[in-house]
Amino acid sequence: MTAQGKLITLEGSEGAGKSTQIGMICDFLKQYNIQVVLTREPGGTPIAERIRDVFLDKNNEGLCADAELLLIFAARAQHLQELILPTLNRGKWVICDRFTDASLAYQGSGRGLEAQRIEQLQQWVLGNFQPHLTLLFDLPVITGMQRAKQRSDLDRIEHEDLEFFEKVRQGYLQIACAQPERVKIIDAAKDQQSVSQQIARVLKQFLSERNY
Amino acid sequence: MTAQGKLITLEGSEGAGKSTQIGMICDFLKQYNIQVVLTREPGGTPIAERIRDVFLDKNNEGLCADAELLLIFAARAQHLQELILPTLNRGKWVICDRFTDASLAYQGSGRGLEAQRIEQLQQWVLGNFQPHLTLLFDLPVITGMQRAKQRSDLDRIEHEDLEFFEKVRQGYLQIACAQPERVKIIDAAKDQQSVSQQIARVLKQFLSERNY
Repeated sequence: MTAQGKLITLEGSEGAGKSTQIGMICDFLKQYNIQVVLTREPGGTPIAERIRDVFLDKNNEGLCADAELLLIFAARAQHLQELILPTLNRGKWVICDRFTDASLAYQGSGRGLEAQRIEQLQQWVLGNFQPHLTLLFDLPVITGMQRAKQRSDLDRIEHEDLEFFEKVRQGYLQIACAQPERVKIIDAAKDQQSVSQQIARVLKQFLSERNY
Repeated sequence: MTAQGKLITLEGSEGAGKSTQIGMICDFLKQYNIQVVLTREPGGTPIAERIRDVFLDKNNEGLCADAELLLIFAARAQHLQELILPTLNRGKWVICDRFTDASLAYQGSGRGLEAQRIEQLQQWVLGNFQPHLTLLFDLPVITGMQRAKQRSDLDRIEHEDLEFFEKVRQGYLQIACAQPERVKIIDAAKDQQSVSQQIARVLKQFLSERNY
């Protein structure tokens, strides 16, 4: 019998360097003969990506907050049933770029939707299922913004955006405080090598606790 | 100050004759100087119709039951916020072809999703908001099937379908039993004129109780 795989999620605001580190995480796990599937949210399967299109479409500006959240969780339910759970059941590990914590940080803390309402949907879709490990890439908002600016053409980063991303950061940190066993904070303001080293330490610890 | 409008929903299985009667309902209410907006679910606004497209698309056969239900309620949340509530607030009445009872009858009783899970989403989206009046067009499944067959090219009505629609019918009747104040059963097996007369009696009673 193959052991059940683990779900590792990566969380953090813009410019936190998740994509840069994802390859390193895969390589690290492969050293332990762990097979890894990479995915992302919202989306991750063709149907979930189609749902993602509806709420990212600029023509749908009138989409209300409740409908947006229901769409995000519809995509998540599909992703979970079609990809995440079957992959874990085959003994592979799943690395997912953003998951439910992002809904709490962005829609909850960022946009001000009641956390309790988001948690109700989370419970409805996931039950007690949670990522086994979450790496929270944390850095000052202004540093993240500057990095994000460099790689794409964000010429209008206004005061409101800074304030919004500050709330998102605080939302993420609150989750990490409440669930320190699952959520590990990575100091993403440091240089790339240092960030990789921090992640390697967390992964080593996680694996050794599970007798790898 | 304009009085708040009322939401009247029409429910029932295939071939029950909802569309045939909808014009009569509008005309009846107009005699009382009531302005009426017609709409339908799932859909009713451009964004909600777009969500409807995702779950009606035959390419999305792999859509899981949970995701389907979340999409239906996402469309419903949008319909409610964008059309139903603002219309009622302007003092107009809304006639909606199918609403939440359909989720309980089709997804719940028909497909066997747990009623409690559907009610949780209903509570999440609607809170305590309910239609003010629901007309349940009830008729034996086989009669409805024969009518539906006449108007479109349904050449394969299999045993499973009959069984499914029988469960849907029973689901609707259970709702009517539980909420007799709101849900009025219309005997839709009768001829068109008799059905119109039954509806007129229900509407007259509903209006007189509200001093129209």
